[in-house]
Amino acid sequence: MSKKNLIVGQSGGPTAVINSSLYGVVSEGLAHPDLIDHVYGMVNGIEGFLNGTILDFQEALPGEKLKGLTHTPGAYLGSCRYKLPESLEDPVYPLLFRKFEELNIGWFFYIGGNDSMDTVSKLSRYAAMTGSEIRVIGEPKTIDNDLVHTDHTPGFGSAARYVASTVREIILDACVYEKKSVTIVEIMGRHAGWLTASAALARKYPGDNPMFIYLPEVAFDQEAFLANIQAAFEKNCNVIVCVSEGIHDDKGTFICEYDNSVGTDSFGHKMLAGCGKYLENLVRSRLGVKARSVELNVSQRCSASMLSATDQQEAIAAGKFGVKAALDGVTGKMVSFVRETAADGSYHMTCGLEDVNAICNEEKPVPQEWIINNGSDVSEEFIAYALPLIQGTVEVPCGEDGLPAFVYRK
Amino acid sequence: MSKKNLIVGQSGGPTAVINSSLYGVVSEGLAHPDLIDHVYGMVNGIEGFLNGTILDFQEALPGEKLKGLTHTPGAYLGSCRYKLPESLEDPVYPLLFRKFEELNIGWFFYIGGNDSMDTVSKLSRYAAMTGSEIRVIGEPKTIDNDLVHTDHTPGFGSAARYVASTVREIILDACVYEKKSVTIVEIMGRHAGWLTASAALARKYPGDNPMFIYLPEVAFDQEAFLANIQAAFEKNCNVIVCVSEGIHDDKGTFICEYDNSVGTDSFGHKMLAGCGKYLENLVRSRLGVKARSVELNVSQRCSASMLSATDQQEAIAAGKFGVKAALDGVTGKMVSFVRETAADGSYHMTCGLEDVNAICNEEKPVPQEWIINNGSDVSEEFIAYALPLIQGTVEVPCGEDGLPAFVYRK
Repeated sequence: MSKKNLIVGQSGGPTAVINSSLYGVVSEGLAHPDLIDHVYGMVNGIEGFLNGTILDFQEALPGEKLKGLTHTPGAYLGSCRYKLPESLEDPVYPLLFRKFEELNIGWFFYIGGNDSMDTVSKLSRYAAMTGSEIRVIGEPKTIDNDLVHTDHTPGFGSAARYVASTVREIILDACVYEKKSVTIVEIMGRHAGWLTASAALARKYPGDNPMFIYLPEVAFDQEAFLANIQAAFEKNCNVIVCVSEGIHDDKGTFICEYDNSVGTDSFGHKMLAGCGKYLENLVRSRLGVKARSVELNVSQRCSASMLSATDQQEAIAAGKFGVKAALDGVTGKMVSFVRETAADGSYHMTCGLEDVNAICNEEKPVPQEWIINNGSDVSEEFIAYALPLIQGTVEVPCGEDGLPAFVYRK
Repeated sequence: MSKKNLIVGQSGGPTAVINSSLYGVVSEGLAHPDLIDHVYGMVNGIEGFLNGTILDFQEALPGEKLKGLTHTPGAYLGSCRYKLPESLEDPVYPLLFRKFEELNIGWFFYIGGNDSMDTVSKLSRYAAMTGSEIRVIGEPKTIDNDLVHTDHTPGFGSAARYVASTVREIILDACVYEKKSVTIVEIMGRHAGWLTASAALARKYPGDNPMFIYLPEVAFDQEAFLANIQAAFEKNCNVIVCVSEGIHDDKGTFICEYDNSVGTDSFGHKMLAGCGKYLENLVRSRLGVKARSVELNVSQRCSASMLSATDQQEAIAAGKFGVKAALDGVTGKMVSFVRETAADGSYHMTCGLEDVNAICNEEKPVPQEWIINNGSDVSEEFIAYALPLIQGTVEVPCGEDGLPAFVYRK
């Protein structure tokens, strides 16, 4: 059997461990020189590949340098948001496969969320249709943790650890003054509230801040929210509330849309503020107390400061597992995580393979039964689910400039 | 000589190392049992002290627990923003000193910024006026680095390291797509731009992102800003700009005030957005490119994730130095930092003492000669000044919950 080449790409938003998944794929690929000749990377995903931008990992990150990927957030290869056409008759498909053939590609890996799994689905179906022997495998990635048919996704654990630890620090900050105050923390998640729910991990004891957590899975009632805060002042003069950016009311209107009344800037463009800023103003106006909002923003997905060692190791394992499966002939699958809880309650994770067609374009919400107190909190079941995923600290090496030393594409 | 008690308080906004200063004062106080009986803490500063809320450190944080302060951000003792009356004839002064006498206080320490040094100034002047033997010492603290007569302030180094490292991560995040984009990062600092300037430390080579840095020390010109970005696209399709929250134009109008036109929320209250959000909208409207803004917000001052070991150790040293000085009879002084650069260029810091009356209510801006490129960048002199202050990583211990384990007041 003649040797072939492997190619891997990254797609969608960055995470803290998308490059750990990449490390898993590349290092496993390089470990089979009898089967795999070159390990290539697509620069800027399938879109960049179409434009001919690829790199060879043995040149780009030779030897020990490759390992730098495991503590580098972002997307080393760059990313894209490019949806392949629905019709497999579209001329882009033969074009792509001709390019694969020119590069002698035998294995294609795509690291991403459900949109990226759509790419994996289409390429694997086109390969099957045309009798191509290219193996196409999806590697999961998303801080949103909303992929179906997997216990969780790489990227979620580190983002959850960042959220929990940052919220814990924000609580410390908010509680220094003995004056009534409300702090609204806005966390990423338009449709799924997994990451916002992780703020519950910041609590040190039941009843601790954050006193309320609101997810997009249930309708948000502004009056009930205000009443909750008013009641909470009986227990704590500093109230911290965590909200998902995607919270909406029972009519489906996003809470952030309520600041439409705020109108337009001096150029006639609508000023867009998040729901945190809106709720901050609501609290200040209606309750007459000091209010502040904090949008955690992109650091949730791009910070290496709170890397979860569990998340990092699982991302690497998923990358390696996918390569081994592809070498065994598997195609059209996404690597999944299967949780095994031992008799002593300890957490173990194994990798599995799921049909990518059943995953792409689907979303997994937080289960309704895990959302309690009229939609203002999450249950102990959520804590038990999420806690193992944020364990372990990763030591990120520092450079001479005293800052984390990441690896960069030339 | 009969033994006396020491009391220490914290005031103003939190920092990552205000509790390290506290550790320095308390540990040094406890190291002199021949002179000092109890080491007390004021809960919520001088305001809390007036209300009778104090604690005894040997009960609150016995033995090794005290050391937990050195990696706990926030303000362990709680804080206040309470300005003592200008007139030393005000009845609050005899009231305070009667309370000091009842507690047999011999040494009074206050950790804070220039407002807090005002408290130190007034108490020390009242003590001198009335012949009280209480020694009153100020311990510097502010992320703003704007105290005069000291090379820098505890709290700045860790905040600068947080800003530089977070901006480096935001750059990674912003550069994953090959599409023109502008990211505005808004950094704390209403009057002094030291912290915003620290974003320059994120660069890996000259010309790297952040491509522009705007401080409140010079007037901000919106048209020049837009022209700079337009020109920068020639070099880099992803442009990151760092701005101080307090930037203003040549008429003295804060840039964030320009969104006044945005008007009021549905309750008739003005919606307040930062200058970052305003500039994001300006860029999107005028240049027609993808724009995003990130407000670093309170994490700049309350995160332990990027503690600078240099900053932490200096804060502890300043605390200890102040106690030794007070035991030597010094009063009415603030502990200052004096930089010594060795022949080999290496950085050394020693503690000094400065008249607190010359420090309170003054502000130290970034020198004009360190601000270059028509107010859009900082010079190499700033880098040389700031770089030693962000060196060294502090390992923050984690609890069983996988999150940083801080110490808390009961």
